[in-house]
Amino acid sequence: MSQNDITPQRPAKEDYKRIATEEAFAPPDLFDMYRKVLADGKADAGFTSLWAFYLSSDAARPQHIRKYIQDLDTARLAHMDEAGIDIQVLSLTSPGVQVFDADTAVSYARTANDYLAEAVRRHPTRFVGLAAVAPQNPAEAAKEIERGATQLGMKGIIVNSHTQGEYLSDPKFWDIFAAAEAFDMPIYLHPSTPPPKMIEPFMEAGLDGAIYGFGVDTGLSALRIITAGVFDRFPKLQLVLGHMGEALPYMAYRLDYMHRATVAANRYESMKPLKKRPSDYLRENFYVTNSGVAWEQAIRFAQEFMGVDRVMYAMDYPYQHVLDEVITLDNMNMATHDKKAFFQTNAERVFKIG
Amino acid sequence: MSQNDITPQRPAKEDYKRIATEEAFAPPDLFDMYRKVLADGKADAGFTSLWAFYLSSDAARPQHIRKYIQDLDTARLAHMDEAGIDIQVLSLTSPGVQVFDADTAVSYARTANDYLAEAVRRHPTRFVGLAAVAPQNPAEAAKEIERGATQLGMKGIIVNSHTQGEYLSDPKFWDIFAAAEAFDMPIYLHPSTPPPKMIEPFMEAGLDGAIYGFGVDTGLSALRIITAGVFDRFPKLQLVLGHMGEALPYMAYRLDYMHRATVAANRYESMKPLKKRPSDYLRENFYVTNSGVAWEQAIRFAQEFMGVDRVMYAMDYPYQHVLDEVITLDNMNMATHDKKAFFQTNAERVFKIG
Repeated sequence: MSQNDITPQRPAKEDYKRIATEEAFAPPDLFDMYRKVLADGKADAGFTSLWAFYLSSDAARPQHIRKYIQDLDTARLAHMDEAGIDIQVLSLTSPGVQVFDADTAVSYARTANDYLAEAVRRHPTRFVGLAAVAPQNPAEAAKEIERGATQLGMKGIIVNSHTQGEYLSDPKFWDIFAAAEAFDMPIYLHPSTPPPKMIEPFMEAGLDGAIYGFGVDTGLSALRIITAGVFDRFPKLQLVLGHMGEALPYMAYRLDYMHRATVAANRYESMKPLKKRPSDYLRENFYVTNSGVAWEQAIRFAQEFMGVDRVMYAMDYPYQHVLDEVITLDNMNMATHDKKAFFQTNAERVFKIG
Repeated sequence: MSQNDITPQRPAKEDYKRIATEEAFAPPDLFDMYRKVLADGKADAGFTSLWAFYLSSDAARPQHIRKYIQDLDTARLAHMDEAGIDIQVLSLTSPGVQVFDADTAVSYARTANDYLAEAVRRHPTRFVGLAAVAPQNPAEAAKEIERGATQLGMKGIIVNSHTQGEYLSDPKFWDIFAAAEAFDMPIYLHPSTPPPKMIEPFMEAGLDGAIYGFGVDTGLSALRIITAGVFDRFPKLQLVLGHMGEALPYMAYRLDYMHRATVAANRYESMKPLKKRPSDYLRENFYVTNSGVAWEQAIRFAQEFMGVDRVMYAMDYPYQHVLDEVITLDNMNMATHDKKAFFQTNAERVFKIG
């Protein structure tokens, strides 16, 4: 419980560090590059829906995001202090380099990672970095994972769901998984807007973004990775899903039942037997964070399903920058050890912090 | 708890009736009509994926389904007795008439409803019927709802998500909601395979069916109905979602947050302010059933979120015909009143049984 009887404006000091694990940044030139992609008509419907809005709207939310997402010094640290966030685990905002042509993507992933590594060097007690990679060129992505791990001090990898409609379940991308496993780097599988072959029924109703389309597409990404047998090939690989696991924990029973039934009936060439049940991979090869979801009931569900050691805190700054949510989470009715695992020790272990 | 120390092969007699609320049937001519749709090349990818498989595969699961789904007498009643199911709430199997041209759909909905009503008359203590409607012709669908309620003794309506890519959120379909509200008939919003503009990334990986695509598309259907303002226009309307609410209860916090943020930013023409939060409509205008999900953890989550009076039992016969699941559910660690609400009294109230 919080130490004050009256709910404070700011989160109180607690007996744990707060490590926020899905926090976004953008180097100063990224938005100009995104504007160019939009101007050139090369963007798909999802990217256009998302970034034409965030880059141009005068509403308070996009203004707040544009104002703070590029800052990796004074303003961000002040917001962290105000919210009681000790450490941000930082990643290039979605869809990162995955909207660019392959050469630009490879080159800009390096640029963005150098930029992030420099910020981490300036504020080594406050920032931790995840390396961006360009799935468009899996061999170069694998090299960048190695460079991130061995030269830049990166503690994981960020990938935003599909890359121009292609999912990491395709074996052509598996050099990325091999490198992640070899360098013991967890992959944060972050949302992107759904690809063109999926987005229309969502977009018609304004449901393509964080409200629903993000979660559905990222859940699909994760499920495709599971059912393609990635974890049978790379058993030590660890993925991180935000937004309470993009609903997959809640769906676990049906995933297991229908996977078993579908495989037994030999219905699809693309769905072959696995060594374990889908829910086993969710429990053994995934961590989930509560990004966007300051709701004890869902957090406790995920803890019960995944184990308390696999559920971590995230704020989703600057997209969801709400101090009351931190206070709500501080006040969860949860054993001291479990709450510290949620806010601090799980992230320290997963991202090798401290 | 079950009355035996050793888990029995068959569910034991308990102090509640078991009313299964999402149980499928097919009149004898339906499969011939589906075969004709497939042969004529008029079916979309989702229908083809589903029914070309179920109508032709020699695997045990599709054989079981083909063998029993048409029976509304001896074989089904024997299965119900064996599983301890007192009453089945029956509905025309998905996608029902929604794959046909409008005239065929209107005509066959009547035929199927007459056929079902006759079965209910033969076995009035064992069967309850939901009326199929053809959204292709909303005015005729509304008439069929009236006929179902006033002449056929139907206790609700079955609609399978989208109709050839169009969702009930479109106001052109709202005569259906008006009739459902006027005759106090709940609408069971049942899954269908995702429409062509959405299905490809699912189908590539064999995930378009009950394992994932069904749930995602039905969740989208329900969300589109909510965000279109249907419940502000028809506040007494009640919908039923299977499969633990197609994950929407677990997503409720994010739905509320992002709906509020998106509306405040005026991002979409199609997303306007509502009188309540999305989660309020989920709690006040929806029931959920556990079809396909014999998992206490998820059922208790839904009960905590929706209230114990809004979560009901379903088996999903003959698609998921598993006696052990009934026993698992009998053994849930749940207050007597709540378990009886789950198995019996909620369904009696919602479908006006007895």
